[in-house]
Amino acid sequence: MISVGILGAAGYTGGELIRLLLNHPEVEIAFANSESNAGNKVYDVHEGLLGDTELEFTSEMPFDKVDVVFFCFGHGKSEAFLKEHTIPASVKIIDLAQDFRIKGDHDYVYGLPEIHREEIAKCQHLANPGCFATCIQEGLLPLAKAGLLTHDIAVNAITGSTGAGQKPGATTHFSWRNNNFSVYKLFTHQHLHEICQTLNELRPSSAPRAIDTLDEGYEGDGITVDFIPYRGDFARGIFCTEVVTLDKPKTAEEIAQLYKDFYRDAAFTHYSDSALDLKQVVNTNKALVHTEVFGRKVVVTSIIDNLLKGAVGQAVQNMNIMFGLDEKAGLNLKASAF
Amino acid sequence: MISVGILGAAGYTGGELIRLLLNHPEVEIAFANSESNAGNKVYDVHEGLLGDTELEFTSEMPFDKVDVVFFCFGHGKSEAFLKEHTIPASVKIIDLAQDFRIKGDHDYVYGLPEIHREEIAKCQHLANPGCFATCIQEGLLPLAKAGLLTHDIAVNAITGSTGAGQKPGATTHFSWRNNNFSVYKLFTHQHLHEICQTLNELRPSSAPRAIDTLDEGYEGDGITVDFIPYRGDFARGIFCTEVVTLDKPKTAEEIAQLYKDFYRDAAFTHYSDSALDLKQVVNTNKALVHTEVFGRKVVVTSIIDNLLKGAVGQAVQNMNIMFGLDEKAGLNLKASAF
Amino acid sequence: MISVGILGAAGYTGGELIRLLLNHPEVEIAFANSESNAGNKVYDVHEGLLGDTELEFTSEMPFDKVDVVFFCFGHGKSEAFLKEHTIPASVKIIDLAQDFRIKGDHDYVYGLPEIHREEIAKCQHLANPGCFATCIQEGLLPLAKAGLLTHDIAVNAITGSTGAGQKPGATTHFSWRNNNFSVYKLFTHQHLHEICQTLNELRPSSAPRAIDTLDEGYEGDGITVDFIPYRGDFARGIFCTEVVTLDKPKTAEEIAQLYKDFYRDAAFTHYSDSALDLKQVVNTNKALVHTEVFGRKVVVTSIIDNLLKGAVGQAVQNMNIMFGLDEKAGLNLKASAF
Amino acid sequence: MISVGILGAAGYTGGELIRLLLNHPEVEIAFANSESNAGNKVYDVHEGLLGDTELEFTSEMPFDKVDVVFFCFGHGKSEAFLKEHTIPASVKIIDLAQDFRIKGDHDYVYGLPEIHREEIAKCQHLANPGCFATCIQEGLLPLAKAGLLTHDIAVNAITGSTGAGQKPGATTHFSWRNNNFSVYKLFTHQHLHEICQTLNELRPSSAPRAIDTLDEGYEGDGITVDFIPYRGDFARGIFCTEVVTLDKPKTAEEIAQLYKDFYRDAAFTHYSDSALDLKQVVNTNKALVHTEVFGRKVVVTSIIDNLLKGAVGQAVQNMNIMFGLDEKAGLNLKASAF
Repeated sequence: MISVGILGAAGYTGGELIRLLLNHPEVEIAFANSESNAGNKVYDVHEGLLGDTELEFTSEMPFDKVDVVFFCFGHGKSEAFLKEHTIPASVKIIDLAQDFRIKGDHDYVYGLPEIHREEIAKCQHLANPGCFATCIQEGLLPLAKAGLLTHDIAVNAITGSTGAGQKPGATTHFSWRNNNFSVYKLFTHQHLHEICQTLNELRPSSAPRAIDTLDEGYEGDGITVDFIPYRGDFARGIFCTEVVTLDKPKTAEEIAQLYKDFYRDAAFTHYSDSALDLKQVVNTNKALVHTEVFGRKVVVTSIIDNLLKGAVGQAVQNMNIMFGLDEKAGLNLKASAF
Repeated sequence: MISVGILGAAGYTGGELIRLLLNHPEVEIAFANSESNAGNKVYDVHEGLLGDTELEFTSEMPFDKVDVVFFCFGHGKSEAFLKEHTIPASVKIIDLAQDFRIKGDHDYVYGLPEIHREEIAKCQHLANPGCFATCIQEGLLPLAKAGLLTHDIAVNAITGSTGAGQKPGATTHFSWRNNNFSVYKLFTHQHLHEICQTLNELRPSSAPRAIDTLDEGYEGDGITVDFIPYRGDFARGIFCTEVVTLDKPKTAEEIAQLYKDFYRDAAFTHYSDSALDLKQVVNTNKALVHTEVFGRKVVVTSIIDNLLKGAVGQAVQNMNIMFGLDEKAGLNLKASAF
Repeated sequence: MISVGILGAAGYTGGELIRLLLNHPEVEIAFANSESNAGNKVYDVHEGLLGDTELEFTSEMPFDKVDVVFFCFGHGKSEAFLKEHTIPASVKIIDLAQDFRIKGDHDYVYGLPEIHREEIAKCQHLANPGCFATCIQEGLLPLAKAGLLTHDIAVNAITGSTGAGQKPGATTHFSWRNNNFSVYKLFTHQHLHEICQTLNELRPSSAPRAIDTLDEGYEGDGITVDFIPYRGDFARGIFCTEVVTLDKPKTAEEIAQLYKDFYRDAAFTHYSDSALDLKQVVNTNKALVHTEVFGRKVVVTSIIDNLLKGAVGQAVQNMNIMFGLDEKAGLNLKASAF
Repeated sequence: MISVGILGAAGYTGGELIRLLLNHPEVEIAFANSESNAGNKVYDVHEGLLGDTELEFTSEMPFDKVDVVFFCFGHGKSEAFLKEHTIPASVKIIDLAQDFRIKGDHDYVYGLPEIHREEIAKCQHLANPGCFATCIQEGLLPLAKAGLLTHDIAVNAITGSTGAGQKPGATTHFSWRNNNFSVYKLFTHQHLHEICQTLNELRPSSAPRAIDTLDEGYEGDGITVDFIPYRGDFARGIFCTEVVTLDKPKTAEEIAQLYKDFYRDAAFTHYSDSALDLKQVVNTNKALVHTEVFGRKVVVTSIIDNLLKGAVGQAVQNMNIMFGLDEKAGLNLKASAF
C-alpha cells in the first residue's frame, strides 16, 4: 500500500482527491492536512463522504509516514511552502498548482501522461498540468507532433464553476451565474505558458514556434494560441474547440487517423467518431477528442472533467505511473451521465 | 410625477426597484443612495441597466426633494437608520425590511394589498411584507377569513437564491447550489411572526388562534403553521404548498369558489383552475393560487416572484395605492417565461 | 463471475446499470437487449461509456447463458413480457418496474434491504422498490417499526428529471423545466401502494393502519401518507421531508438514537447529525437521513440518488445479496459532489 | 391603434409576441391563429399570461381586420403559406422565418434596423433576421463598414435552448442538456447566408468579399466566417465572440470609438466599456457589444436575448418603424437580471 499525505485537503481538489483515494485499491491516506479544519471530520466539509470514512483533518504533517504528498494549495503557495518546510527526499511530491509547470531551476516533471509517461515513471517530483491546459493540449498534441500547427490557433474553452475554487465571489454567486455566460482573461490566461511550452517541445523544426504572448508580447515571429476562456453555468467540466488552419487541405479521414494513432495507447484519452457533449466525461478521468475538417480548417473538440483529468484524476494517474501501478487503478469511475 | 429616493440602492432589491421605476410613468428617481458605490453608474452594479439610464449612485440623501423614500436595507437596519436620521414628516416611507411588520409602538401599516388596501391608501409609513410571508399568506387568506383554519397547517416553500441577497456565501455558491436542494430554518423561519399576525387578524372568533411558535413555544393552545423553507436551485421565485385539514369535507368547487370570490378585485392575485408552475409568475408582480381537495384535506399551491410580489413589486404596488395612482402603474411586466 | 442479462438496456436505468456493472468485480454482462438499437454500440446511446466498452446492443435474449436478468422496462411491461416469454427457473429475475411490488399471486420479494435482507438473500425473483418509495421509506422505517406513526404524515418529495425517463415531453423540456418548479400527482402518486404496504408490515398492533388512499378512498380508519411530489430543476436525486406528529413529545436525542440503532447495520443508509443537502448522495448508492424535533412534531429529511439507491444501485445491492456477494461490491462510487 | 394578426401563435415566438403586444400602447391583437389550439385560452399554452388576458386562439385568419400580420411559423412554411393563401396588399407582413431573408425574386426588406432603418420605414413586407445572425452582425457591422474585415473571422456563439423551439427532442431534454454543453452545425449553420449577404453589402470595394461557404464551397476567393454554434445550458440568450485579424494594428480606443460612432443612434444597441455577461440583456430587446484589442487581433463580444432582439422584439421594433411609431414603443422591458 502507498501511504499518502494531502496538503490543502479542505479545498475542492483536496476533497476530490480524498473521494478518489478512499476507493483506490493500493492507497491509504496517512493524513489530510488543513489548519483551519483540524479535528473536523472530512465529511463535514466535503460532499458525499458521510458514511464512507471517519477520517479527520489534521494540522500535522508527518512526512516521515508517507510515500507521496499531494499539494492541493492555491497557485503560488507550493513554492512558498517548500521554502519553509523540509520534505524528505524519499517522499514523492505531486503539485497541483502551477508553480513548477514551466521548466526552470527545479526537477519537477510536467505530468501530461500522453506525452511524458516515461519521465513521469522515473520522476520524484511532478507538476500536474492545469485544467484548461490539459484540455487544450489533448486537442492539439497530434497536430503539434505532426508539424501541422503553422498558423494562429483559435481556441475557445468553457469551464465549469468548480474551476474557480471554493471561495465564494461575485462570479460564482449562484444568482449571477445561473443561466448566465461570460468571458474572462481574454487572450491572457496564465495556462498559455504551459500550452506553448508543450507545443514548442513537440514541434518538428519545420514548424513555426508558438509564441508565448504573455511573456513576449504579441509581435514576435511564430504562431499564437488565441485563447478565449468562458465561464459556463455548470459545475464540472471543460469544453474546448480548437480551430487550426493547415497549409494545405487534408481529408477528414487523415486527420481522424492521426488522432487515433497518437492516442492508441493512452489510458484515458479517446478519439470519438461522433460529435461530443460535455457530460460524456463528467465524473470520469477521460479526455475525449473529435475532429471535423472544412477545407484547410480543422475543428477539434476536446472535453474533460476539470476536477479529474483536469486536476486530481490526472494527479492520481500520475501517481499510479510514478509507483508502477496500473495506470487506471482507482480511476474506473462511473460517469455521472446526468 | 412622484419623486422617489432609494436607500440601500446597490443591493438586489435596490436594483430591482430601479429597474421598475425607470419604466414607471408617474415616477422620477431623485436619488439612489449607496455610500460604497457613490459616483458609480447604477449600470456598473445592476444587470440590465446599461443603455437605459446614466443615473449614478450618490452618498447623499436629499429628503427634502422626495415624496417617498424606499428602505432597501438589510433587516434590522431600518430602525437603526431612523434613530440616526430625520426624515421629514411629509415624506412617505416604504420599508422593505422586517423591522416594522409586527404591530407595536409605531405607525407602519402592513402592506398586503389583498387585505389592507384601505389602510395602505391612507398611510404615511408602510412595512412591506416578507417574500415567504407574502406567498404563504396569498395561499391561506381565503381559508383564514372563512374560519377554515382549524388544524395545524403543513407549509412547504421553495425559494430561489436571490432571496438570500447579494453577499456571496456557502449556500449561494454556484458550485454548491447548482443541481442541489436543501432545507433551512426548519419550523423556525422569522416570517412566521407576520404570517401568524395576519391569520389571527382575519380569523373569526369561532376559529382557533394561530400560535406564533417562535414567540411562545410549541405547546400553546391553538394551531401551528409548520413551515419548511427549502433552498431551490433557481434564481427567482417562491413555490409554496399549504396543506390544510378541514373539520368536515368541502367540495373542490366550494374551495375554488371561495378563492375566486376572495381575489375577485385583487390587482395581481389570480386563481388558476389548472396546476401551477413557477415560471408563470417569474418576472411579474403576480401571485397565482390553485387548490385541490382530497377528503378533508385542501392542498393549496401559491407562487410569486420573490423580488417582485415578494419585495419591490409589491412595494411599488403599495406606493401606487398610497399616492392614488393606478394600482398596476409600472407593473405591467412581461413575464420572462423561460 | 455472475453472468448478467439486461432487458430494456437502452433506457435510463439500462444505461446506469451498464455503467455500474462494467466496474463490478464479480459480474460480466452477457447481453444488453434493445430491439431498436440492436447492433449499435452501447456508447452510442449511453453517456460516458465511450472508451470503456465495445459492448453492443442485441435483439437476442439468450437466457440460458445468464445467472440473472434485470428488467429495465417501463412499468407494466414486465408482467406482459413474462406472459410471452419463458425464463428458465434457474435464472434469477430483478424487476425494476412496479409490476410485482405489491404482494399477490407471485413469488417476488420486495427488495428493500434495510428490512428484507434475509428474504432477499433467499429469493429467486425480486421486485425492486420505486425511487420515491425508497426515499420516503428510508425516512419512515424506524418510526414505523417503533409504532410512532399514529397521525397523518405530511410528505414532500422533490425529484430530478431523470425520474421521468428518457422520452422527451413537455415537463422535461429544458426550456420549460430549467429554473422552474411544479407539483404533480398530488396525494395520488402510485408509490403510495408500496409505502403503505411496508408501513403496515412493520407497524406493531398498537399503531393504526396506514390507509392506501389510492385503493380505498380517503375516509377509512387509520392514518394517511399525504404525499406531494414535486418536479425539481435538477437531473438526479430525490429530496424528501416527512413530518410526523407523535402522541407525546420525545427528545431530539431519543429520535436520533432510534434512527442510529435502526440503521446500524445498513450498508448504504446513514444517519446524519447535521442538516442534509441533496448532492451528498448524488452519484452514490447511499441514503442519508436526518431528524429534528419540535414539540410533538418530528421532521425527517431523507435523500437518495433516484437512479442509484432509487433504482439500479439498489438493484445491484439486491443482486449482491441474492448471490452472497459483499453487499457493497461494485457500489463504492465516487460522489459527483458538484 | 394598429390591429395585429398572428399566425403560428402557439409556438415560442408566437407566445413571446403576445406577451409583448399585450403591453404595447399602440397595438391591439385582432387574432392569434393556431389550428390545433383553437378555442383554448392563450394562457393555457403560454407561461405568464394568466390574469393578463382572456384572449383565445382561433383557427380563423380574418386578414381584412388587420394592419399587419406576423408569421411565427417554422422555417420554410412562410413561403408555402403564401402560395396557398392571399393576404390583401394593404396588410403588412413581418416574417420571422428565414424564407425571405436572402434577396431574390420578392420585395421583403431584411429587417436589421441598425443598417436598414430607412428601407424598413418604407417597406410593406419584412424578413426579420435570424437570432444568431442578429447577434453576430451586431458584433461585426462597424468593422465591415470600415473595411476592416480582411481576414477569416473566428465566430463562436452559444445559444439558449429556446432557440431550438417548442417541440421536445433529444438535445432539449432537460436530463441531457442540464449542466451539459455541445456544438452543432459546425461551420455550416444556415445563418451564414444572411450574415455574408450583409457583410458584402456593407464592405467598401477595397475589402475582400465574404464567401458564403454554404453556397460556394470553401475554396473561393475572399474571407470566411468560421462560425461554431454551441448549445448552452440556459434558456434565453446568445453570447458571441468574434475574433477579427486586422491588416495593421489599431488601438483599443480607435476600435471602441468606431463602435460608439456606428451605434450612436441605435435604439437598442449599445457599446459597453466593460466586459459583458449574458444576463445584461436577458428579457430585453437590447444588443450589447464590447471590444478588446491584442496586437492585430480584435476580440468582439456581442450579446442579445434570442427571443427578443433575436426574434420578436426585433420584429416589434421593425413594426414600430414601419408604422412610424416610437421605435421603442412596447419594448421598454424590465431585464430579468436573475
